[in-house]
This record gives sequence, structure tokens and C-alpha cells, in this order.
Amino acid sequence: MCDEFYMSLAINRAWEFQLLTYPNPAVGCVIVSSSGEILAIEAHEKAGNAHAELNAVKSALCQINSDYVNSLGRLKNANEIYDFILQNHSNLLKDMVAYVTLEPCSHQGRTPSCAMLLSKLGFKRVVIGAKDTSKQASGGEDILRKHGIQTKLGVCKSEADSLLEPFWTWSNGNFTFFKIALSQNGVASGGTISNLLSRTHTHKLRSLVDMLIIGGNSVRTDLPTLDTRLISGGVDPDILVYSHSKDFDKSIPLFSVKDRNVEISSSLDPAFERKFVMYEGGGNALSNLDKRIKWLLIYRSNEFKSGKNISLDLKIHILHTTKFDNDELLWCKIIE
Amino acid sequence: MCDEFYMSLAINRAWEFQLLTYPNPAVGCVIVSSSGEILAIEAHEKAGNAHAELNAVKSALCQINSDYVNSLGRLKNANEIYDFILQNHSNLLKDMVAYVTLEPCSHQGRTPSCAMLLSKLGFKRVVIGAKDTSKQASGGEDILRKHGIQTKLGVCKSEADSLLEPFWTWSNGNFTFFKIALSQNGVASGGTISNLLSRTHTHKLRSLVDMLIIGGNSVRTDLPTLDTRLISGGVDPDILVYSHSKDFDKSIPLFSVKDRNVEISSSLDPAFERKFVMYEGGGNALSNLDKRIKWLLIYRSNEFKSGKNISLDLKIHILHTTKFDNDELLWCKIIE
Repeated sequence: MCDEFYMSLAINRAWEFQLLTYPNPAVGCVIVSSSGEILAIEAHEKAGNAHAELNAVKSALCQINSDYVNSLGRLKNANEIYDFILQNHSNLLKDMVAYVTLEPCSHQGRTPSCAMLLSKLGFKRVVIGAKDTSKQASGGEDILRKHGIQTKLGVCKSEADSLLEPFWTWSNGNFTFFKIALSQNGVASGGTISNLLSRTHTHKLRSLVDMLIIGGNSVRTDLPTLDTRLISGGVDPDILVYSHSKDFDKSIPLFSVKDRNVEISSSLDPAFERKFVMYEGGGNALSNLDKRIKWLLIYRSNEFKSGKNISLDLKIHILHTTKFDNDELLWCKIIE
Repeated sequence: MCDEFYMSLAINRAWEFQLLTYPNPAVGCVIVSSSGEILAIEAHEKAGNAHAELNAVKSALCQINSDYVNSLGRLKNANEIYDFILQNHSNLLKDMVAYVTLEPCSHQGRTPSCAMLLSKLGFKRVVIGAKDTSKQASGGEDILRKHGIQTKLGVCKSEADSLLEPFWTWSNGNFTFFKIALSQNGVASGGTISNLLSRTHTHKLRSLVDMLIIGGNSVRTDLPTLDTRLISGGVDPDILVYSHSKDFDKSIPLFSVKDRNVEISSSLDPAFERKFVMYEGGGNALSNLDKRIKWLLIYRSNEFKSGKNISLDLKIHILHTTKFDNDELLWCKIIE
């Protein structure tokens, strides 16, 4: 199989954790043995957890020798995994090929960088999707080359760039996305549309964003709580109620969730001052969407539903689709 | 990687030719070398052309030794490919593993069956999705075992069964599916919805079906021609206009396409007497769909479109999604 095939596996794996890695980028890594066997398809899952390369190296070692499952396999802490691998890899990954959607980091902290890790393990070749242009982590390819590792940059570049767009956008200021749940025939209202897995995913996103925007009419009509009750340990997001009138019934649950601010504003500007923002809305909000918002997440249920659709003209590019049982999450870019 | 991983690759490849293989089943095949490298991911593409196993063997040989590209790689005729491979395989596929979505055929014609082919090439193991229960082709697993090849049946069984459902259904009488094109927000009317690739795919299906059903109101309002002009060598399908009134303007193009019959009927029964039938319709037809029709093909465009949606209650199970550039084709089963 060609490099693009393996890189696609890495990219698809990374999409499973898109946005959930905030403030880190979503990154995937595939490891292929010198004889061509795929040993690992892994991703960075959450900020603070292991990078994609480290997860893939861990999986590959466990795949090659099951003795690792009970030792390395049980470690959760990224630093511990790093240390264990450097001491116990026995050159088992020598001459292998790694496919990484983003240039391995050069950042040297308490543990070596991912570029150093792959160098020390004796990889023969590292195939990279997108270049890392950040101040902190760029230069990984140079490190690899200095250690005699062949590199190839720009494989599936366009797909790797799409995957990274939220990261670059929030790194440069603000990334705000619009989220909507739709039936197969475009109905957004009249009871719950999406399934429990989809709603749980939304709660994970709520827990990560710096601010959640909701329209005033939605607050008055749907009385949403906008908390993170479907996940454990979730952080309820600050709320911006987008409304020209400040007249709300403050006794509804939205206003009484602990440890968060609820701001009522006739402008979205306070949200654009935050880094990572979700806008939950319906057809009216989508029809009048602020031009600064480019990403649309559609949770599509598996049901046609009697009722009126949201009606508007909008062209999108579907970057990726995630399955949540019978629901689908479409990750879309709004086309200018 | 596990057996399910490779089988999924075979299943996904087969879906690219779903229905297009009529009257044959859609089948995919992946070949993995003894060292674990994926050498081929192929499918049966069209009745009369090579089976999935033969296509995969051909690809694998070309992958192993590029000398085959100029000889074997140029052959199109299934019998010629067979003969060439049996004479020139040089045992290069010995001890490999084949993943086939359907039990390899036992049918012996002018050339050996697929089960015999894999046996003669010395495969070590053949992993099978679904059992072949047809009179003509079953028994392939027995042939493989008699030749000392390990077999494993039922890997990704549910997905392999879904892939085969149209084949079993038309083999037992009639397979009729409903086709609709929808915008992102459920609009089915007001000009062309789907893109050229989607419409070309529809014309390929039209060329294969025994009969095409269209509602009388659609004929009166949209004046469709329902031919196969987007593909070369297409066969324009017989038409059943489903209408209680026989009053139509016979001068519209629909009635003047050469070499086909157009029947006006107040019953769908004449269609259910054919083996393979497509019903092209809108929301009204879908709302009142005959209970015998279980499969729904939704061509979904990448645009939200101002206008009224089709409004109905219907629950579906999405079996697979095919990308046609920015359009998506959702292969759906209607849930009872």
C-alpha cells in the first residue's frame, strides 16, 4: 500500500478526537513494520495525555510482544510511558516507518520530544502530513534527519491541514464553531433530535470550550440548562446569551448552574475574545451567522421527522464524518 | 491488526460497486502477505468481469513484482487473467492470507472456481465474511479445507450480510429500492439537487435495473426523460408510471426514448414481478411507500437550500456512505 493509504488511517483516527484535544492539536500516528505490517493506529486523545507518536509506539510494542501488555500496557501517565519505553524498547521498532499527521514535536521538556523518541527507537522513515509551524514545537523534521532518519513531508497535505485548522485557528486567537442537530429531512426542533452518544459528545465539547453561545429565543423557548451532566467531571461552560433584550426569567436552570458566568449580550464580540467557543443554535441563528464562524458541526439523526425544516441557503464542505451508533456527526466547513 | 480490520477494508471496497454488480453479488477481497503487508484491496466490479478474488490476486502479483504490470496488469478478460495467473504465479502468494466478504465460489466453468484458485496458489488461510448459500456457488470453504487451507467463517458477519442483502433479495424474486436526492436540510425539489457524479451513478443504476418506477405527478410536473445519457453504452430502462389516471401528454421526451416500454399502472405489482427495480420519487412517494420496499438510497448534496422539506416520519439504518466529491450517497435500510 502507498504512503497515502497509511496516512489516511492516521488522519481518520485523529478525527475521533477532533476538538477534544483542546488546546492541543488533533494528531494521529500509524506504525508500519519493516515487513509492511500495520502495528498501531493511534491518536492524541486529550491534552495532558500521551502524544499520538507515544501512544502508537506503546501499542506497537504491545502488539509485537504481549509481555508488554502487563507492564507498559498498564501505564497511563505520559512521562512514565516515555521512560519505560526508552529503557525497555529492546530495539524492536528499529527500521520501522511512522506516519504522523503533524510533524513530530521538537519540544524538550521533562521527557524527550516525539522527534527524539522516534530517533532513539531507530525508525527508518517518518512520513509527515503537515508541517508544524508553531514556535514551541517546530523543527522535529530536522531532528529526525540529523539522526539519519528519512523523512517525507506533505503526504495527504490537504486532509492533514483540514484536521489541524481548529488548532491553528484557536492558537491565533479564536475558534468558534456552530453546532446543530438535524433530522434526515432538516428538522431541528420538536423534541430531542440526536441520540445519547451524540449528546454525550456535545457535553464533552461543552466541558472544553471557554464559552458557549446561545440565542435569546432558544433560552426563552427551550429552557436549556447547557450543562455537562452526561459526563463525569465535566466543567460547565460560561454562557453568552445572544439577545437584544435582557429580559429573562432568571429562575430557569440555565441561570443557576454553579461556578460559571452567564452573560447577556447584544454582541458576539465577548465570545470572539475567548479562544475556543461553541455556538448552539437553530435555523435562524445559522441563517444570520457571523462571518467569523467557519465551522459547522451537524449531528444528523437516523430519522425523518414530520415538521418544518430549517430553511436557508448555505454551501458546506464536509471534512469528515464520525459515527455515533446510528447518528452521524458531519464536520463541515462553510464555503465562502 | 485483527481479522476484522482487514475484512472491513474488503467490505468498504465492495460497497463501491454495490448494485453495480447486478445480477452478481458485491464482493470484496483483501490479500495480506505472510509478513503482514496488505498487498491488494479489490472488489468484483461488474457481472462478466473478474471476481473479487481474481482481481485481488492480480493486484497482489503486480504489487510484489512490477514485471507483472506490463503482462498480467494489461489483461481485462477474466478467463485470460485466470489462465495467466495459473501459469505464471511462481508461488509468490504461498502462505498468504485472503479476506473475502463472501465464501469463495465453488463453481467450475471454463476456468477453475475462486476456491480452487486460492488453493492452487497455496494460500495459508482464507477468512470469510458470509457463507454462500446459493445452489450454484456454495461449498467453497470445503474445497479450501480439502486443500489444507485454514478457514475462518463469519468475520464481520453482520456487515458482510448487509452487503449481500440486495443479492439474496433479487435472487429470491425482487429487489426494489427507493432513490431520492436531498439537500442538507431535506429539500427534494426546485431544480437539480445532486452533483454530476451522483447523477452519473444514478444513470449507471438506471442502465442495470429491469424497471424504473416514477410517480404520475412527477411525470406531469418535472417532465423527466429518465434515460442514461450521462454514461456511454447505457441501456434505458423500462418505465412504470405509477398513476391512477392514464392521462399524460405523450409528446414529452419520457415517452419517445427508443427501445424501451413505458407502462402506466395504478399498481406497483408489475414492478415486483421484475428482479431489480428502482423507484425514483419525492416526499409523497416516500411517505406512502409500499411495505415491500426496504432499501433507500439518499444522494445528499453539500448545500442547504431555501424551501420546504419533505415531511414524514421514517426511521432508517445507514449501512454505508459513499462519497461523490462533495455529495454523499447514504445506503439505508428502512427500519420496520
